[in-house]
Amino acid sequence: MSFQKLDDLGHKLEALEHALAILGADEATHMAVGGGEKRAEAMSALAGMYHARATAPEIADWIEAAGQENLNEEQAAALSEFRRQYTNLTCLPSAFVERQTGVRMRCEQLWRDMRAKNNWAGFLPALEGVVAMVREEAAMRADALGLEPYDALMEQYDPGNRAAAITPIFLQLKRFLADFVPEALVVQEEKRARHPLKPLSGVYPVEKQRELGLAMMAAVGFDLTHGSLSVSHHPFCGGVPSDVRITTRYRTSEFLSALMGVLHETGHALYEQNLPKAWAHWPLGKARGMAVHESQSLFVEKQIGRNPAFWRWALPVVEKHLGESWSIEDILPHVHHVERGLIRVDADEVTYPLHVILRFELEQELVAGRLEVADLPEAWDAGMKEYLGLSTLDNPADGPMQDVHWAGGAFGYFPSYTLGAMMAAQQWAALTKEHPSADEDLAKGDFSAINEWRRAKIWSQGSRFSTPELLERATGERLDAAHFIEHLKRRYGKN
Amino acid sequence: MSFQKLDDLGHKLEALEHALAILGADEATHMAVGGGEKRAEAMSALAGMYHARATAPEIADWIEAAGQENLNEEQAAALSEFRRQYTNLTCLPSAFVERQTGVRMRCEQLWRDMRAKNNWAGFLPALEGVVAMVREEAAMRADALGLEPYDALMEQYDPGNRAAAITPIFLQLKRFLADFVPEALVVQEEKRARHPLKPLSGVYPVEKQRELGLAMMAAVGFDLTHGSLSVSHHPFCGGVPSDVRITTRYRTSEFLSALMGVLHETGHALYEQNLPKAWAHWPLGKARGMAVHESQSLFVEKQIGRNPAFWRWALPVVEKHLGESWSIEDILPHVHHVERGLIRVDADEVTYPLHVILRFELEQELVAGRLEVADLPEAWDAGMKEYLGLSTLDNPADGPMQDVHWAGGAFGYFPSYTLGAMMAAQQWAALTKEHPSADEDLAKGDFSAINEWRRAKIWSQGSRFSTPELLERATGERLDAAHFIEHLKRRYGKN
Repeated sequence: MSFQKLDDLGHKLEALEHALAILGADEATHMAVGGGEKRAEAMSALAGMYHARATAPEIADWIEAAGQENLNEEQAAALSEFRRQYTNLTCLPSAFVERQTGVRMRCEQLWRDMRAKNNWAGFLPALEGVVAMVREEAAMRADALGLEPYDALMEQYDPGNRAAAITPIFLQLKRFLADFVPEALVVQEEKRARHPLKPLSGVYPVEKQRELGLAMMAAVGFDLTHGSLSVSHHPFCGGVPSDVRITTRYRTSEFLSALMGVLHETGHALYEQNLPKAWAHWPLGKARGMAVHESQSLFVEKQIGRNPAFWRWALPVVEKHLGESWSIEDILPHVHHVERGLIRVDADEVTYPLHVILRFELEQELVAGRLEVADLPEAWDAGMKEYLGLSTLDNPADGPMQDVHWAGGAFGYFPSYTLGAMMAAQQWAALTKEHPSADEDLAKGDFSAINEWRRAKIWSQGSRFSTPELLERATGERLDAAHFIEHLKRRYGKN
Repeated sequence: MSFQKLDDLGHKLEALEHALAILGADEATHMAVGGGEKRAEAMSALAGMYHARATAPEIADWIEAAGQENLNEEQAAALSEFRRQYTNLTCLPSAFVERQTGVRMRCEQLWRDMRAKNNWAGFLPALEGVVAMVREEAAMRADALGLEPYDALMEQYDPGNRAAAITPIFLQLKRFLADFVPEALVVQEEKRARHPLKPLSGVYPVEKQRELGLAMMAAVGFDLTHGSLSVSHHPFCGGVPSDVRITTRYRTSEFLSALMGVLHETGHALYEQNLPKAWAHWPLGKARGMAVHESQSLFVEKQIGRNPAFWRWALPVVEKHLGESWSIEDILPHVHHVERGLIRVDADEVTYPLHVILRFELEQELVAGRLEVADLPEAWDAGMKEYLGLSTLDNPADGPMQDVHWAGGAFGYFPSYTLGAMMAAQQWAALTKEHPSADEDLAKGDFSAINEWRRAKIWSQGSRFSTPELLERATGERLDAAHFIEHLKRRYGKN
């Protein structure tokens, strides 16, 4: 039976994914500093084995034959995702993929060096090489999938997302933010005039912050028998669903950034830990995509973790672990701090979408060949001036060189961040419609009803539906910027 | 070129070994408790991939063709170890290996349960099943390798070791110990009468013991950029040569057991860290075998770590980290404690060989079919009474059920422990002949000359030579019990 062959293949691929995921998490947390070269060799060889197995020509026959077999609904859904994965993995010739991997890796390495030196001219030729190959890649993917080139790139990260659907939504959000960012800044200033800012600074030992993080993780629903919290330079959520590895980094001078980081990664982890276990070895059992994943992390970090109701419960927990008492009035200005800045990863939830929309617009132009890499600094600068009133012309390291994504060839990924933020707001709106007492639950530290809703609507669905369909089934409507806009108004606007 | 195919294969096998080694170490140190089931699935699938690749039929052709190629000396040595590994891996039919794996795993699982319940009758049928298969296995290996059946089993762990050569050496040691164990106990008693024992007990925080362990590791030569120290229930040395993971366990009531454990594992780690890097992806680049490995761990733990000269240097280090001052006279009675006991893993270096010799004798009888499993408790008891004056007839959990080795089908492994102890003593004797000031080096904490000798003679040789040949080349003579006997007399005898 051909479906059985796919099922067996799934188990073998799951084992290789397991090894790659744990080796990857281990590298960032527990590996000896001198172990990197051999680790890279081993992971590259294992990734090669994965690719060879996942793209073997006979799989095409199995997929076709399995389509003729008498499959139940679950198997049929699994088959459809096997097909999608196989098509996405095989639509580029191996020789192209190998060449592209080399070009991307060299560009990433150069990026680390040139960004540190703020040297755009030194970086430019390498990025041009990457963009040239991305254009080729997009054309080949478009051909294989019957999609527009940029959509074919996005399809890798979020099946079903289309630029034509996203563009008007981002446009609506952009127009709203043009007025709203100044409004939020004025509101913030007025609040601070009435209630002076209590500084966050103090002395917070790592071990106490860690205990606080673990307590929050457990309360929010992280299963500590199937995951752990470590330290790494860049926080991440890795590992496997049965053993999710999240990390944070600590400053001993303040506790909020590590804690919010833990909540963000806990959001990712809850999704992984609650994926359908019976499908774990099928593509169907994986998380749907990057936007949905980001919606889960932002749901915990922003919808829950920056909700004033949450802090009614959280402040006594903070006090218990850090021995320091904070009032709601003192902590919220830090939790809700808004500031125009150059750096996406440092941005707050009000200004963040503008960073993403700029990249979404520019990368479409780059892929389409309407913008050349050499003209990127001017185009970036124009966008930053328009959206955030900031210039980066003499500072490309904090302009078009600030992210690794493009250097690594990841075009079509950026929109996931803001789509995730919007989807999280839409999920929160749908949830509170069904459970009007969600805020009171938060204030009691009771996450059970909230998590039950998310389990039913999102986590347990694995990859059954495309990203837009999953959202529509969960919330009863297609993606609508109104929910996110409402959320920002409520939290940051004039009341 | 066929040698090139073997070389490529070596890189792929090295990647899978890397994954299995790190996943194994991770499981015992950092894995979430609920991650075990998926980890076992993944490791079993990866082990299957390793086995399928390492035993592919075309490898036989590559090995034969490479033998006709113009290889340099190093490649010729590599080819010979490729052939040895391939023969050892393919001399059993796959169906037999699969059946045997199941029988062994079930027996190991049952062993955990039945040992805890001290239930020999419940364990007996499973062990009979394992022994029946071991007899079959030994016959097949003997046939493929042209060796005696028991030697063919030992060949997996220590190439070149033969029962006919070991038996007279063990006999000599056994006869010596028959008189020497009582003598050592009398000497110990007399010493304690003169100098009362200062108890080891105190309060030693884990973090301080860990810092002490790290300081000792670094001093003895462990490269902390290519390895680390963690905690696990059973101490081990795992990982890969570029990232060696050693573990220990701590009691907060005394510091000596964790420290001696760290020194033991550091001995294993030094061997792994100093294997020839250029051969890392060839069987030639691996450690020679279990007896040589044990000789390296025991060299550090016993020849160095229980040497009085070592403690002249070590006690100030202990004091620095634990804030507690010990005199040589007070610490040595703990470091050199001798006691007749039932349990091999708790035994000191004087009585340990008797535990091993008993097992060596019994397992040869079991493999040959001259002893049946049903008669093992009586045979064990007779041996324990003769060698150590202890009875285990009513306590099989601490008799023939105490070790996991036989349940897991590992027959031919036990001699490695005592061969390792003897080889370590012979290495120390050869080294001190060349470097008469070795004791003074220890007293200064200077391990450089000692390690240079070991690097040249043992570590850098990888698997170039059989176990007996490696020892003979390193020390200038074949294995001779006289060195170990001299060592015991000097340390534990009447002076």
